[in-house]
Amino acid sequence: MLVVMKAQATPEQIQAVCDHIEQLGFRAHPLPGAQRTAIGITGNQGEADRGNLESLPGVAEVIRVSKAYKLASRDVKEEDTVIRFAHSTATIGGHDLAIVAGPCSIESREQAFAIAAHVAAAGAQFFRGGAYKPRTSPYAFQGLGLEALRIMAEIRDKFGLRIVTEALDTETLEVVAEWADVVQIGARNMQNFSLLKKAGRLRQPVLIKRGMSATLEEFLMAAEYVMSEGNYEVILCERGVRTFSDHARNTLDLSIVPALQHVSHLPILIDPSHGTGRRDSVLPMARAAVASGADGVMVEVHDHPEKALSDGPQSIYPAQFATMMEELERMAPIVGRHLPRAVPAADAALAKASGQ
Amino acid sequence: MLVVMKAQATPEQIQAVCDHIEQLGFRAHPLPGAQRTAIGITGNQGEADRGNLESLPGVAEVIRVSKAYKLASRDVKEEDTVIRFAHSTATIGGHDLAIVAGPCSIESREQAFAIAAHVAAAGAQFFRGGAYKPRTSPYAFQGLGLEALRIMAEIRDKFGLRIVTEALDTETLEVVAEWADVVQIGARNMQNFSLLKKAGRLRQPVLIKRGMSATLEEFLMAAEYVMSEGNYEVILCERGVRTFSDHARNTLDLSIVPALQHVSHLPILIDPSHGTGRRDSVLPMARAAVASGADGVMVEVHDHPEKALSDGPQSIYPAQFATMMEELERMAPIVGRHLPRAVPAADAALAKASGQ
Amino acid sequence: MLVVMKAQATPEQIQAVCDHIEQLGFRAHPLPGAQRTAIGITGNQGEADRGNLESLPGVAEVIRVSKAYKLASRDVKEEDTVIRFAHSTATIGGHDLAIVAGPCSIESREQAFAIAAHVAAAGAQFFRGGAYKPRTSPYAFQGLGLEALRIMAEIRDKFGLRIVTEALDTETLEVVAEWADVVQIGARNMQNFSLLKKAGRLRQPVLIKRGMSATLEEFLMAAEYVMSEGNYEVILCERGVRTFSDHARNTLDLSIVPALQHVSHLPILIDPSHGTGRRDSVLPMARAAVASGADGVMVEVHDHPEKALSDGPQSIYPAQFATMMEELERMAPIVGRHLPRAVPAADAALAKASGQ
Amino acid sequence: MLVVMKAQATPEQIQAVCDHIEQLGFRAHPLPGAQRTAIGITGNQGEADRGNLESLPGVAEVIRVSKAYKLASRDVKEEDTVIRFAHSTATIGGHDLAIVAGPCSIESREQAFAIAAHVAAAGAQFFRGGAYKPRTSPYAFQGLGLEALRIMAEIRDKFGLRIVTEALDTETLEVVAEWADVVQIGARNMQNFSLLKKAGRLRQPVLIKRGMSATLEEFLMAAEYVMSEGNYEVILCERGVRTFSDHARNTLDLSIVPALQHVSHLPILIDPSHGTGRRDSVLPMARAAVASGADGVMVEVHDHPEKALSDGPQSIYPAQFATMMEELERMAPIVGRHLPRAVPAADAALAKASGQ
Repeated sequence: MLVVMKAQATPEQIQAVCDHIEQLGFRAHPLPGAQRTAIGITGNQGEADRGNLESLPGVAEVIRVSKAYKLASRDVKEEDTVIRFAHSTATIGGHDLAIVAGPCSIESREQAFAIAAHVAAAGAQFFRGGAYKPRTSPYAFQGLGLEALRIMAEIRDKFGLRIVTEALDTETLEVVAEWADVVQIGARNMQNFSLLKKAGRLRQPVLIKRGMSATLEEFLMAAEYVMSEGNYEVILCERGVRTFSDHARNTLDLSIVPALQHVSHLPILIDPSHGTGRRDSVLPMARAAVASGADGVMVEVHDHPEKALSDGPQSIYPAQFATMMEELERMAPIVGRHLPRAVPAADAALAKASGQ
Repeated sequence: MLVVMKAQATPEQIQAVCDHIEQLGFRAHPLPGAQRTAIGITGNQGEADRGNLESLPGVAEVIRVSKAYKLASRDVKEEDTVIRFAHSTATIGGHDLAIVAGPCSIESREQAFAIAAHVAAAGAQFFRGGAYKPRTSPYAFQGLGLEALRIMAEIRDKFGLRIVTEALDTETLEVVAEWADVVQIGARNMQNFSLLKKAGRLRQPVLIKRGMSATLEEFLMAAEYVMSEGNYEVILCERGVRTFSDHARNTLDLSIVPALQHVSHLPILIDPSHGTGRRDSVLPMARAAVASGADGVMVEVHDHPEKALSDGPQSIYPAQFATMMEELERMAPIVGRHLPRAVPAADAALAKASGQ
Repeated sequence: MLVVMKAQATPEQIQAVCDHIEQLGFRAHPLPGAQRTAIGITGNQGEADRGNLESLPGVAEVIRVSKAYKLASRDVKEEDTVIRFAHSTATIGGHDLAIVAGPCSIESREQAFAIAAHVAAAGAQFFRGGAYKPRTSPYAFQGLGLEALRIMAEIRDKFGLRIVTEALDTETLEVVAEWADVVQIGARNMQNFSLLKKAGRLRQPVLIKRGMSATLEEFLMAAEYVMSEGNYEVILCERGVRTFSDHARNTLDLSIVPALQHVSHLPILIDPSHGTGRRDSVLPMARAAVASGADGVMVEVHDHPEKALSDGPQSIYPAQFATMMEELERMAPIVGRHLPRAVPAADAALAKASGQ
Repeated sequence: MLVVMKAQATPEQIQAVCDHIEQLGFRAHPLPGAQRTAIGITGNQGEADRGNLESLPGVAEVIRVSKAYKLASRDVKEEDTVIRFAHSTATIGGHDLAIVAGPCSIESREQAFAIAAHVAAAGAQFFRGGAYKPRTSPYAFQGLGLEALRIMAEIRDKFGLRIVTEALDTETLEVVAEWADVVQIGARNMQNFSLLKKAGRLRQPVLIKRGMSATLEEFLMAAEYVMSEGNYEVILCERGVRTFSDHARNTLDLSIVPALQHVSHLPILIDPSHGTGRRDSVLPMARAAVASGADGVMVEVHDHPEKALSDGPQSIYPAQFATMMEELERMAPIVGRHLPRAVPAADAALAKASGQ
């Protein structure tokens, strides 16, 4: 259920409605909108009494939300969610496209810095890099862990890039949350409900990758798990689904972009690297992602992909990344967007990085 | 196998090699390239003798083609195939994007003319319309047949649009070939090998839609069936594959575009109408198609989709089509393409059609 | 719609109702049941007038059939369809399990006879063998054609086996129908509607293989195409669907057996050879098929699978086939079935065949 | 790598080889076989030196294991793994079929006891019941937790049934391990590698459900994660995969049974309840499971499925379960198995439970 407050409702009235909801044993989620505040009600003990709520001061109306996802639904929040970061102009979900780039795994300080310099120079505002890696084999490289997180914190300081990295489980969630700007939940954990709930208690944006065979509704229900705990800053990320089709590692399902935007206010990024698994398909699919209306892309970049400890064949070269940025910059206005490129500062950084 | 002729080989030498191949019981496929002619050898009685062929006058080398598809392979023909039409500047596969638009089914002369006027006015160069409809139910509308073909011939004359329409079987193939500019083989017939072989004996371009669960290789093998009979003008068309994903009618597999272009010289169009089945996803996916590098799009347009006899929910309105054309025109240069829009003539036609 | 006649309705009354339906421009399908006759009404010009039909002599009631498939539905015919053959005790769909066995392709008279002798000796009542082969590649072995049909006719005469073989297109349909007892429509042709309609005009049972990504409803609609033309002897055959799963050639979807039996009266066979593509999985899946309640199995048997011109890796050896028959014979009573094994006659045949 | 010891190798020699391996920084997994002991070597720092190991006393040979899964592979352990339980004759993986039955969720002591009495009376040896439920929605019933575990412990005491229940995360893993006989890892957690590793440190059998779109190799790699930590008692469970097929909740992939048995020594159960999601398909698929060679089945039974808090439509009635047991008992010998049914004791229990 959703309590829609009147436009002129006071903060005290909003608080009083929230208190009332919590006293009934439910959870209240105040969601401020452009015109007025809505308060989502969640819980698993049936439904709250409607008449009672409608009679509270400042309440305009009480609406049943028929979809399985509530807080993630556009019925509950009409405006697109825009995620902002302290001390940064970078956003995810608004008018500006968000570009997240970096290596699959942080392999060394040197490797990470070299790649960060390249992607910053080309105008990326977010840096991705695996510290804890979910690997199909227990015998494969599992990531540098805390050391990688420290390296990425240095990269944030030096290049001004916001850091996106994956938490594998409830233990690593805490340490990742300490160091990263956006905490990623991987495709294999999209229905790890305990992890999602814990991520819902963070005060940081959470990026959820679509599971390999997740439907749109299941994808939004994963977001709902995070949001139901009070963290409304959720970013969705399509990374290809599993089908019979064998020309690519996965089948990138771009048509989920308009379908999601129709029913949800959450931002959606596209990962063409995992989505295709082929270097020669990354740029075409990154362009297609922006053309489809996505809020940005997340790509793997490596300066020596042939030596990468993971995902080499799908990592693009720095020069390809620069080309991609130019193409996306030109495409952005056609879909009513803008690609911000903080070139001068990053250029300086690149100069410094290569001059040492 | 592939016989590569020397750049200075004479027509007589090329003919002599072809004759020799045919005498051995194989089929020779001379494929002229920018620099020199290659001659594909096909047949199912093992391999031709290599040494013998290499000793013929004008032969540069003889190459084994390891892929299952031969004539469709870029190994055999390096340059992109460009399909041209008599008395028309329209092309499929070259620098210009090809836009095919029209209703799912031709329902009446009036309906077809109204839609044709709109799509011509917006700059389309190809008109699509079903005369013979493959329907899941034997009790559903099966198309107007010959009457529809006659209506489309009139549309070609009046609006200068090239006509694309589907042949369902060997009987309708002949009559469709008589009236249409491009003969379409539908997704359900992609492995109707008898029909493909007969289409290979036409002197008209053949557009093959990808089967609902066809792999890239099977898709190219369908083209190979047509080409092995001597018709090299094949256009591929991705229209979504069948997966568990339920937010769209099919899962549009755009990443097949770069994958196909890597291995084949044939043009590839995208059908976002069948690919998504949702009107609100057609424009985003049409843009994504062009961004991915496709050679054009094929969309369903209807002036009264709510009354359409088939595929209403996925047909876009004429105004949406006009918007799409503007967007694609702006995107084309970013991917090194151009969207030709024969606006003035079509405008005139629209004026006439509306009775002014 | 369905007209249910009274139990005591006379043949003349039934005929009069059919005539009335046909005069209205619909097609009448009289379907005799254990208690009374039902008359299915099909056509694509809307619905017949109900009140009018109900007032005809002998009519008990008129029922709307809400499912897309009508004649294939159990709503229209409650009793299981049992297919019988002249001069033979073999049936498909009744109490007895039907076992169809033989090579993928008829490669020579000698090969076909050797395999036929084995499968007859083990108790099979149906022989399968490809005369016309649908091949992914135009350059692969396409079958012996008419010669293969002649060889199979001899096999029928000698071993008393009923012959099941595939028709690829409308041309081969006629010649196959001349020689075979059951005409097979392959998985790739499951939505070749022209072919299905022509098969509906045959006076022979038609076996339809499930398409690679056909839903249950589409599968039954293929049967409906055949039945709508007046041929009610349709046999369904599950042969595996296409999924991401890579341990087998296809994913055998056995749970379609109870699902089909719930909604349709048509018999259903299972093909574990194409269904798995692996010799070591054929026997386990044949047993599972019978255990799931299927009406029989269709398997590929080859005496020298390593030399087979097609599908060698999935063909079982004659000794494995004999083991399978013993296992299925033991399992049949558990699912209320019987496996007839005409051993003596076949033994004699085997003796003769090997003694020449 | 795998060190195969000589048949006459002493325990001291085996221990010395293990110590040597561990000193090299690898992990040693001694796996006793019928004839001789093999020692698996795992670790992610490349390969151990072969020559060195071969020269140790008692070593017969050192073999490279080429598959990604090592300890789960039949190359490393030829004999089938048989899982035994203290103070019980129940086994999983041996000659006897294992039947696991019970409600989706433990809803109350009364419900659980009533169902337990029924399944014990019909001869089941394992009881399943959800204490912690992975639910797509955060607002759905999440299970009774510890209370459910206590109820199941009572059921074990009263009916002699071994308890199988799911652990959702590392927290619940510990408490589940305290109370259950077999710890289940659900399909959504099949690639929750942190959870798998922790399960590898338990001294209890772990049942892993196949992920919704997991390949055979990924399924075995999940087992490998558990085994690499020293817990070799892993049970695999197929529960249907996600495909386009819409007549059932999932597509039960029975052909994975022979495929798994070909490459792995681990036992494999089938869950036809989740595998189909339809009550009327559970018995046919349970029979098919045993016929395919599976080591047993896991089914949901509910005495009032229409009132079940979860999975009602797929739960069978107690009377259906009894029928299933009779059918499986008759089928077992055909596949060289036996279905043990501890009827007398359970009958007594049922009598007691019903208050007589």
